[in-house]
Amino acid sequence: MRILVIGGVAAGAGAATKARRVNEEAEIVLFEKGSYVSFANCGLPYYIGGVIEDRDELLLVTPELFRERFNIDVRINSEVTKIDPKAKTITVKTGSRSKREPYDRLIIATGGTPVTLPVKGAETDGVYHVFTLPDADRIMSRLELGMKRAVVVGGGFIGLESAENLRARGLEVTVVEKLPQVMSNMDGEFSDAIIRELEAAGIRVLTGVGLAEITGRKKVTGVVLDDGTQVKADMVIMAAGVRGSTQLAEMAGCRLGATGGVWVDASMRTSVPDIYAAGDMVESLNLVTGKKVRIPLAGSANKQGRVAGANAAGGHMTFKGVLGTAIIKVGGLTAARTGLSAREAEAQGYDFECVYAPGFSNATYYPDAMPLLLKLTVERQSGRLLGAQGIGRKGVDKRIDVLATAIYGGMTVFDLEDLDLAYAPPFSSAKDPVILGGMIASNVIRGEIDSCLPSDIPALLADKGTVVLDVRTQEEWDEGHVEGAVLLPVDELRARYAELDPKKTYAVYCGVGYRAYNACLFLKAKGYRVMNVSGGMRAIRMGV
Amino acid sequence: MRILVIGGVAAGAGAATKARRVNEEAEIVLFEKGSYVSFANCGLPYYIGGVIEDRDELLLVTPELFRERFNIDVRINSEVTKIDPKAKTITVKTGSRSKREPYDRLIIATGGTPVTLPVKGAETDGVYHVFTLPDADRIMSRLELGMKRAVVVGGGFIGLESAENLRARGLEVTVVEKLPQVMSNMDGEFSDAIIRELEAAGIRVLTGVGLAEITGRKKVTGVVLDDGTQVKADMVIMAAGVRGSTQLAEMAGCRLGATGGVWVDASMRTSVPDIYAAGDMVESLNLVTGKKVRIPLAGSANKQGRVAGANAAGGHMTFKGVLGTAIIKVGGLTAARTGLSAREAEAQGYDFECVYAPGFSNATYYPDAMPLLLKLTVERQSGRLLGAQGIGRKGVDKRIDVLATAIYGGMTVFDLEDLDLAYAPPFSSAKDPVILGGMIASNVIRGEIDSCLPSDIPALLADKGTVVLDVRTQEEWDEGHVEGAVLLPVDELRARYAELDPKKTYAVYCGVGYRAYNACLFLKAKGYRVMNVSGGMRAIRMGV
Repeated sequence: MRILVIGGVAAGAGAATKARRVNEEAEIVLFEKGSYVSFANCGLPYYIGGVIEDRDELLLVTPELFRERFNIDVRINSEVTKIDPKAKTITVKTGSRSKREPYDRLIIATGGTPVTLPVKGAETDGVYHVFTLPDADRIMSRLELGMKRAVVVGGGFIGLESAENLRARGLEVTVVEKLPQVMSNMDGEFSDAIIRELEAAGIRVLTGVGLAEITGRKKVTGVVLDDGTQVKADMVIMAAGVRGSTQLAEMAGCRLGATGGVWVDASMRTSVPDIYAAGDMVESLNLVTGKKVRIPLAGSANKQGRVAGANAAGGHMTFKGVLGTAIIKVGGLTAARTGLSAREAEAQGYDFECVYAPGFSNATYYPDAMPLLLKLTVERQSGRLLGAQGIGRKGVDKRIDVLATAIYGGMTVFDLEDLDLAYAPPFSSAKDPVILGGMIASNVIRGEIDSCLPSDIPALLADKGTVVLDVRTQEEWDEGHVEGAVLLPVDELRARYAELDPKKTYAVYCGVGYRAYNACLFLKAKGYRVMNVSGGMRAIRMGV
Repeated sequence: MRILVIGGVAAGAGAATKARRVNEEAEIVLFEKGSYVSFANCGLPYYIGGVIEDRDELLLVTPELFRERFNIDVRINSEVTKIDPKAKTITVKTGSRSKREPYDRLIIATGGTPVTLPVKGAETDGVYHVFTLPDADRIMSRLELGMKRAVVVGGGFIGLESAENLRARGLEVTVVEKLPQVMSNMDGEFSDAIIRELEAAGIRVLTGVGLAEITGRKKVTGVVLDDGTQVKADMVIMAAGVRGSTQLAEMAGCRLGATGGVWVDASMRTSVPDIYAAGDMVESLNLVTGKKVRIPLAGSANKQGRVAGANAAGGHMTFKGVLGTAIIKVGGLTAARTGLSAREAEAQGYDFECVYAPGFSNATYYPDAMPLLLKLTVERQSGRLLGAQGIGRKGVDKRIDVLATAIYGGMTVFDLEDLDLAYAPPFSSAKDPVILGGMIASNVIRGEIDSCLPSDIPALLADKGTVVLDVRTQEEWDEGHVEGAVLLPVDELRARYAELDPKKTYAVYCGVGYRAYNACLFLKAKGYRVMNVSGGMRAIRMGV
């Protein structure tokens, strides 16, 4: 059996080695059009920033190792230009020579291609992607010349990580994002907190404005935005997304799905016999919605490659699907998401509630406890957890991974209440933020209490039938409060509640939602219409 | 409705406040025999060590707050001496006066009592528990006198945390544990690693030896162990476990379960009408085995209290059960567990496999990646995850929480393979250790490869039909290897495998199990009988 693999990064490299483990006798050849296989492309921004000092650290497996350990024939600088599924051959171009290679099984792992926006000047010297090791090498050489200003086009993972790392190198950095927010796979309020953190690091962030032109004749001198703004720059990082490299698969006749990604079944088989596909250019099942999505991330690419490799070699494995779990470090802040954001749940037509769960990384009486904020997206009738987002300076990764596991398992928020998570003061609280989130959401889903979101406050203030009630202390109020709110500290509520108008509805907030929750239940028992502003001031301010 | 709560720490305090939220009209009275309610007893060792500097940090809620915010009547220094379930009264002793108090609903949350070993001298001045705030106060006063040496009796959570914190105060500390290992809820190899860490911090650890006597007439001068060893000490910390305080419940006629804990149903009702119980003295359902267990931990106590309080007040909530998830920080090391250890699975008669998954806290090419080691207990036929243990210097808490969530959800190791966990270089690897563990375990459960454990090595070495084969490099071998093993580096295996004897079985190890896995599959394809020593040298050495 002759197994050919096209593409040698995450999915392709994993597919080839897994195929070898499943089938010792097969001939396995891997073709990579670039000069490197199996390099850590997620590490590139950190290499540029000097966080990762040794370039060799990024080279996970060398062609020699593939040969010696796995008996895999790795051919770098070899571009596959054609697939003939009838003849079961591919055409490989190495240098100026083209050669046909027969296959029994073919694994396409061509990954993605970073988008270059079609603007004037996009090809000017000084415009870079952060996608391959040679990209990083070019940027590093440039930086050694003493660059002063960079514009990063795109406010997604690669854009923000690159911006932060260039800033760490001392450059003036401006991020330009066409959408109204950065990190568009999270709800807008998380973007606000991330932008504040970027700005605190001295990075300028422009949202809702697109790139119109890159200026400079021989070398980049700056950019012009579509509102006319001009920004000076010595270099431009083009981080405007990654397009799936589906051309070869299409050429082979592989069906594309509605997402534009290559369609595969659970075994990572394409629609063409004996051709498998894995990685950034395939579409995957979203395990929450049951719909296909294309989410190009390293974790999925690795798993898909392993499954494609095993099956191409005669094994029987499956890849179930994705939740779109993702995480980013921005300065000292961590932001992460899994499943459906509120925006996504809305777009998919779910009947859902959102709640915020403000907690701490660990017991507050133990040193270095840091606030964090979770947002849960919950199916209203079933209580099923649809998605989660989190932000904070410590421990967010843990909570998102727990929540991703819960979503994978089809759990409800009632299950979250009962999770048995590890507690000791250095690691968590007796009520971990995830459990707390389960309790808060369960109270809402069970109908014990009505909830609203900080984003509802402007409308509530405008509504004459509603009063926004602050139940914190006078001291907290003095340090900042919602303009237009009324103060009645929770610990005076029992004595003074008769001051409130029973004809009004009260939207109650406090610091994190706990005092307001108690106040709401008291007022509800006294016959008032109440709702808890989920997450309190921490969510109102997105202060973590 | 009059709801009385006996006990004011985790379960009792939570029960009272939840009861209030569910029922604004009820009269709620909480009786606490000590002087403090709702204090952070998990923080006591850290207060003793000076990690938590401010004593007030440990006081989570004061009686005043209970009164003002929750309209709960808290009576401290009030010991309940009798329950009369027919008359529906309790008898409360405050000072020298006793009074009967009627109830409609009663919640017993009497918690536990630290065990005082019945040895000569156990009542000597200088013998302390670390259980209440006055305990900590007494220890702190003593420390101010300039103590030099402490003996800690018991190698569980409280014992080890106390030992570490007393050592941090500069004392010479000896831990004495009657069992052959510390942290008896984890498998022995984890104890070995923990003991090494304690010893590195300058703490002496004696296992397999019990306390025979505490010496000193007026004040403690030392201890005598049951092997005759004498250890000098100015103070003795008695941390030999916590016994459930079931006396009052028993007096009321509440049935005890086989574990000796108070029997409750899912609503936290005892066998006596209108009496609920929650906290350390009740037994809970083990969600893995379906059997009752008594695991006194703060997380469960909090959840149980909430459920008991809600239901006593007229609500309808349930508490499902526990996994025994627990975690401890020892020096720079974190050790954690959930579900069943190998020893527990063995004792329960499960047909199971164990595998080690050695991973890293985050991407190895990103700074500060720290090795960690997971051990999974897996039901052999179903692949169901029965339990997990972990040890390492960073990120162990996250992995144990993810695994606890997976066990709660009844997931298999095949599910772990497919989890969509958050990956960016500062937080994890593309294959998170949990996913890696799923892959390793799945390969074994699917029958792709046979596996053995480091603990099997002595028997394998003694077996003439088996060869222990090291497939690392000569350099690694020279730095240390299994005595009696044979070296054949994986990258020479394809050229040299004919040197191996096809009549023998090969137990193959490497650094963490990955090279050995590849070597095994190669040798298996060539007709050799092989097994992978799970976890490689990292598990053999427990080196994290």
